[in-house]
Amino acid sequence: MARPQKLLTPGPTSVPPEVLRALSEPVLHHRSPDFAAVFEVAQERLREVFRTENEVLLLTSSGTGAFESAVVNLLSPGERVLAVSQGEFGERWQALAGAFGCDVVPLAYAWGESPRADDLREALEESGAETVFLVHSETSTGVVCELEPLLASCRDAGAVSIVDAVSSLGAVPLETDAWGADVVVTGSQKALMTPPGLAFAAVSERAWERSGKSTLPRFYWDWARQRRAQAKGSTPFTPATSNVVALVEALGLVLADGLDAAFARHRALGRACRAGVKAIGLQLYSPDDDSAAVLTGALTPQGIDAVELRLALRDRHGITIAGGHGDLVQRLFRIGHIGHVGIEDIAEALTAIEEELRAAGAEVEPGRAAPAALEAFGSVAAA
Amino acid sequence: MARPQKLLTPGPTSVPPEVLRALSEPVLHHRSPDFAAVFEVAQERLREVFRTENEVLLLTSSGTGAFESAVVNLLSPGERVLAVSQGEFGERWQALAGAFGCDVVPLAYAWGESPRADDLREALEESGAETVFLVHSETSTGVVCELEPLLASCRDAGAVSIVDAVSSLGAVPLETDAWGADVVVTGSQKALMTPPGLAFAAVSERAWERSGKSTLPRFYWDWARQRRAQAKGSTPFTPATSNVVALVEALGLVLADGLDAAFARHRALGRACRAGVKAIGLQLYSPDDDSAAVLTGALTPQGIDAVELRLALRDRHGITIAGGHGDLVQRLFRIGHIGHVGIEDIAEALTAIEEELRAAGAEVEPGRAAPAALEAFGSVAAA
Repeated sequence: MARPQKLLTPGPTSVPPEVLRALSEPVLHHRSPDFAAVFEVAQERLREVFRTENEVLLLTSSGTGAFESAVVNLLSPGERVLAVSQGEFGERWQALAGAFGCDVVPLAYAWGESPRADDLREALEESGAETVFLVHSETSTGVVCELEPLLASCRDAGAVSIVDAVSSLGAVPLETDAWGADVVVTGSQKALMTPPGLAFAAVSERAWERSGKSTLPRFYWDWARQRRAQAKGSTPFTPATSNVVALVEALGLVLADGLDAAFARHRALGRACRAGVKAIGLQLYSPDDDSAAVLTGALTPQGIDAVELRLALRDRHGITIAGGHGDLVQRLFRIGHIGHVGIEDIAEALTAIEEELRAAGAEVEPGRAAPAALEAFGSVAAA
Repeated sequence: MARPQKLLTPGPTSVPPEVLRALSEPVLHHRSPDFAAVFEVAQERLREVFRTENEVLLLTSSGTGAFESAVVNLLSPGERVLAVSQGEFGERWQALAGAFGCDVVPLAYAWGESPRADDLREALEESGAETVFLVHSETSTGVVCELEPLLASCRDAGAVSIVDAVSSLGAVPLETDAWGADVVVTGSQKALMTPPGLAFAAVSERAWERSGKSTLPRFYWDWARQRRAQAKGSTPFTPATSNVVALVEALGLVLADGLDAAFARHRALGRACRAGVKAIGLQLYSPDDDSAAVLTGALTPQGIDAVELRLALRDRHGITIAGGHGDLVQRLFRIGHIGHVGIEDIAEALTAIEEELRAAGAEVEPGRAAPAALEAFGSVAAA
């Protein structure tokens, strides 16, 4: 086995030792009172992180599974859906809805752009769609959109919104109820600091009403069956019980400091990472503002291979960062800073990047990134 | 938190300490070479326990999810499927296929009966169905069917078989390739001694061909997408990576002793459990022969509540066993003996059952069950 890696990726993220310990407790039976007690705490804590009074459905799957559950419970074959996209994940949801025979009307932005509420308002009027897909944090680019006005456009048009919050929930503000989001989907393995295997969907009353009319076939993803089982303290099919125990521990850690502290920390980490990247002299790919609190994307200097850089970080420093896509695969790298990440992790990664860029022949002055990052972090943390 | 429970249930089962330790290793990124290496070993070991040369698909879901994947990849709306049922799970697969608009022709046996190859042959001829559902081990009753001749009936009729082996694989003989099973589905949390969260489907070449013709919509469950990702050492969507690490450890334990040793142990445990139950004077609900190697079902004496018995075992002995269904809920209990279970666990449980039956007022002679169980176990183990 290779050396353990520090995961500075936008998920799966490294998990705190307390959470790993909880994961390795003896397995609980999913139809036992012991599990029901754990499940109830999971429910309470999920509601807190989602900032909702509604039920949060707990599925054993990836985030894509939970998004699929929203599609098959809310839409019908041939039904129109307005799918906003600004990167890889927005495009994935279009492909998913297309696979289920929905009439997908894209509101597509270039990768890296941020969707606008006025465009959405117009597109809703033109299309007549009654369902909208939104991606809160587009993990492929680092863009975190301004969700609140987008949700207002949906509400004004009477459309049901399905929000991909897989890499945003717990990292940046998301007020499910106050902003009127209908369905918010996330996974366990991002800012919620739990190993992958669980995904969640918060469902509004309006979405429950709509789900009664949907005719797409469903069984494993059936929300009504899920709701009945959750009311009895379990799930309809055997859930990843050990992961639920770990989730309860992780959410406890998140909520002990408070969500607002988590948001401030992620914002400060983003600012620190951008300051460090710029101190190295690299071009940012993700937005250069405090919205980019989930990950920082940057381009290697011309002639320096980003894939090689990532391999060097992994093999010589034990740090895993994420890569780029398509034409940018040789230039783009992405540093995730959600979940169990501290400023010292970011400073360490930036220093390693400086070192490996120099080793690859780039003209980089060593020792600039970490001080810049620490200073930027402190100024936000103190604010 | 209540005291840790020994799970003598037909899943989730208790997991060996080595497997829990593997589960709690630092999280791996699913697109990393480290995970690809683990995934490859998982693939090799899964092929060994399935006894197949074909690819085994690894899904993050329960066993029901994997069964659903078989339905949506092999069938089309309105297509006829012959669904053999002899208990709760057979009925579940009928409901699942019905939810997807298939034309479900049941070949239904009373709960507790075992399906017969000749009946299947006849039903295939009459129905013209080209797909068959089979349940190898019906967890609700303890019946393990004679799968080989049933599969021969399918093959002779040119029908594609989908086998629910959720509680049987790794516990009783199942020769996927040699018996010509097309799709074999199981979960991590039964005889494979891994926490719940993963499910598997072994897929024959014939099933792959069929999947090209199926028109049911699919995305998360799409086998073609899954196959492409697995060829690159990962899965299309973030899998439960920690559970995969645990799986590799657990399958290593199973294969170190050899599958045949596991089958012999389960057969011996079944015989021991039946001998003990009969020594107490209880009526068996599961079959009274060596096929019943997965679980032993028994009825409490008239007037003794099985639900109360289970609660007493849990609260006073730290032993969780499974209950009954429908009309039998007050009488039936089921002791699972698959996975990480030894004869001493069975002897302990039987002794506790004796004690609690006496405490509840039953006329039970104490100290009879354990010796009977040990003797029956030894006679098989020595054979």
